[in-house]
Amino acid sequence: MKNNDLQIWVDRIRSGEVRAVARAISAIENRTPESVELLKELFPHSGNARVIGLTGSPGSGKSTLVDQLAREYRKQSSTVGIVAVDPTSPYTGGAILGDRIRMQAHHADTGIYIRSMATRGFLGGLARTTADVATALDASGKDIILIETVGVGQDEIDIVRLADVTIVILVPGMGDDVQSIKAGIMEIADIFVINKSDREGADRVEKEIRAMQSLAMRDDNWNPTIVRTVATEGKGIAELAAAIEEYERYLDKQDLRLQKKISNWRERLVEMLRESLLQRVTRERLSEKELSAYAAEVAGHHRDPYTLVDEIVGSFAKK
Amino acid sequence: MKNNDLQIWVDRIRSGEVRAVARAISAIENRTPESVELLKELFPHSGNARVIGLTGSPGSGKSTLVDQLAREYRKQSSTVGIVAVDPTSPYTGGAILGDRIRMQAHHADTGIYIRSMATRGFLGGLARTTADVATALDASGKDIILIETVGVGQDEIDIVRLADVTIVILVPGMGDDVQSIKAGIMEIADIFVINKSDREGADRVEKEIRAMQSLAMRDDNWNPTIVRTVATEGKGIAELAAAIEEYERYLDKQDLRLQKKISNWRERLVEMLRESLLQRVTRERLSEKELSAYAAEVAGHHRDPYTLVDEIVGSFAKK
Repeated sequence: MKNNDLQIWVDRIRSGEVRAVARAISAIENRTPESVELLKELFPHSGNARVIGLTGSPGSGKSTLVDQLAREYRKQSSTVGIVAVDPTSPYTGGAILGDRIRMQAHHADTGIYIRSMATRGFLGGLARTTADVATALDASGKDIILIETVGVGQDEIDIVRLADVTIVILVPGMGDDVQSIKAGIMEIADIFVINKSDREGADRVEKEIRAMQSLAMRDDNWNPTIVRTVATEGKGIAELAAAIEEYERYLDKQDLRLQKKISNWRERLVEMLRESLLQRVTRERLSEKELSAYAAEVAGHHRDPYTLVDEIVGSFAKK
Repeated sequence: MKNNDLQIWVDRIRSGEVRAVARAISAIENRTPESVELLKELFPHSGNARVIGLTGSPGSGKSTLVDQLAREYRKQSSTVGIVAVDPTSPYTGGAILGDRIRMQAHHADTGIYIRSMATRGFLGGLARTTADVATALDASGKDIILIETVGVGQDEIDIVRLADVTIVILVPGMGDDVQSIKAGIMEIADIFVINKSDREGADRVEKEIRAMQSLAMRDDNWNPTIVRTVATEGKGIAELAAAIEEYERYLDKQDLRLQKKISNWRERLVEMLRESLLQRVTRERLSEKELSAYAAEVAGHHRDPYTLVDEIVGSFAKK
C-alpha cells in the first residue's frame, strides 16, 4: 500500500467515514500486513474514547442492555461504537443476522457504529484483535466504545478485562447461580448488572454477589456496584450509566486509570510479541511444507517435539 | 537437575509410580525448566495410549460419565488415566473437592489415576499443557487416557480436539439446544452422547443433531455416532465404549489415524514454538522491568506499540 493511500485512509477513518472504518476493522480482523501499518498511524490519534466491556451468558439480555446503554449515551450527545464478539455457530448465522436487526434499530443514527465479530476461525489472539478494533473506533472519534462478549471462556474474559470499565451481567434464576459462574468472571467485574430484575430471584442474586465480595478484596479497594435493570423496558439504564461514571471518577480520584492502562498494556504487549515472533519465524525459518514434514516425523515418533522446538528457536535467535 | 536424578525420575514414571507421575504433572503444569527435560525423555516412551477427549456443559453429567467409562475400561483390564480440566471458581474450591470425591470412588484401584487441573492462572497454552500431561500419563503405561473439559471456550475446544477420539455430551432440555451450542463444538464431535436420555426431549436432541449433520460433511466422511446414556445408572456405557472402538477401527481402516495425529502435531508444534519464542525473548531481550517501562510509555501514548513490537522482534532475530 502506498504511503499516500494509507494517509487518505487514515484521514477518512479519523473523520469517521463509515466505509473507511468498516474496511479498517476487516483488515484488523484478517490481520493483513497493511492493518499493522494502519494501526501504527491510528494509535497516536486514539486514547480519547472510554472503553466499556460487558459480558454475560447467552440469554442474559446482553445485546438489549448494550443497545439501551448506547441510546442513553446518544441522549448525552456522545457518539458510540459497539463491538459485539459473537461466538454463534456458523450454521445458524446468528452474528450476521443479529447485526442486521440491531443496525435497523439505530438505522438513522450515524452517531452509532455497530460491528459483530464472530469468534470462529480466529487463531488465538481474539482479545488482541478486539483491542485493535477498539483503537480504530477510538481514532475514528467515537466517544464511547462498548465491547460485548458472551462470558464463558478465557478468551471472552481477556477481552472485557482490557476495557476501562468491566460490567458483568447476571440474571435471576437462569441456573446462572453465582456459585457456578466461570472462574475469573466474578473477579473482573467493576460493576454487576442484575438484568431482568423484575423476575423472581433478583434479591438472591444480589445476596450471592455480596457474599462472594465479602470473601475477596480487590487490589484497588473498589467495592463493585450492583445495578438492577430491566433492559427491555429501559429500566435502570440511566442508573447504570451513572454507576459507570462513578467508577471512572473513582479511578481518576485514586489515580488508578493510568495504572490500569499500564497493566493492560503489559499484557497486550506480551500477546503482540508472541504473535509477531511466530509470524516472523514461520515466514523466515519454517515454511508450511517444513512444518508438515516435522509434524509427520513427530507423529511417527521419529523425533521428539521438545528438542525440535528448541532447535528451531535456536536457529532463529541471535546469539 | 542432574542427569542421573532425571533418569531415576523417568524410570519411576515409566513403572507407573503414582508419586513420580504426580510430580511430573505438577512440573508440567508449572512449566518448570526441568519439565521440558523430562518431556524430552518421556516422549519416546509415549504413543501407546488411546487418548479420548470428552466435553459437555456444566450439568451434563460429564464427570459421572467419565467415571463410568473408566470403570468399563477397567473391566476390560485396561489401565486408565483421567485428566479433568476444571474451570471451577477458586472461591468454591470445586476442582480439589471434586477430585477427592472422585478419588474415593476408585480408591482401591491403582489402575486408575485421576488428576484435576484448574484452568485458572494459566497464561494461555492450556491445550498444550493438557497434551503434555497426556504424554506423561501415556509414558507411565496407562492404556486409556480420558480428558474431560467443560465445553464452553476455545481453550476447551482446543483441548479435546487434540485427542484421538472426541466426544461431545449433550442433555435433553437444559436450554442446551443444539442451535445455541458454542461454535466449533458440533464440528469436533466424532461421537455424540445424549446423557440423561431418560429425560423428556432426548428424541428432539437427536433430531437436531441429525439435522445439523445433514448440513455439514466432514473431511474424513465419518458420520458421527449418537449414543444415549444414563450415566448415573451405568446405562449405555458399554455401547459408548463400543462406539469409540468402532470409530477407531474406522480411523485405522481408512488410514486416517496417522493423518489425524500429523494434523494435531502441526498445531501443537506451532503452539510450542509460540510459547518457546516468547520465553526466550523475555529471558534474553526484555526484562520485567523493561516491559513495565514500555507499557507505561504506550499507556501514556508516548510510543506506538505496533512499531515497538517490530523493533523488539527485529533486535532478537538473526538477519
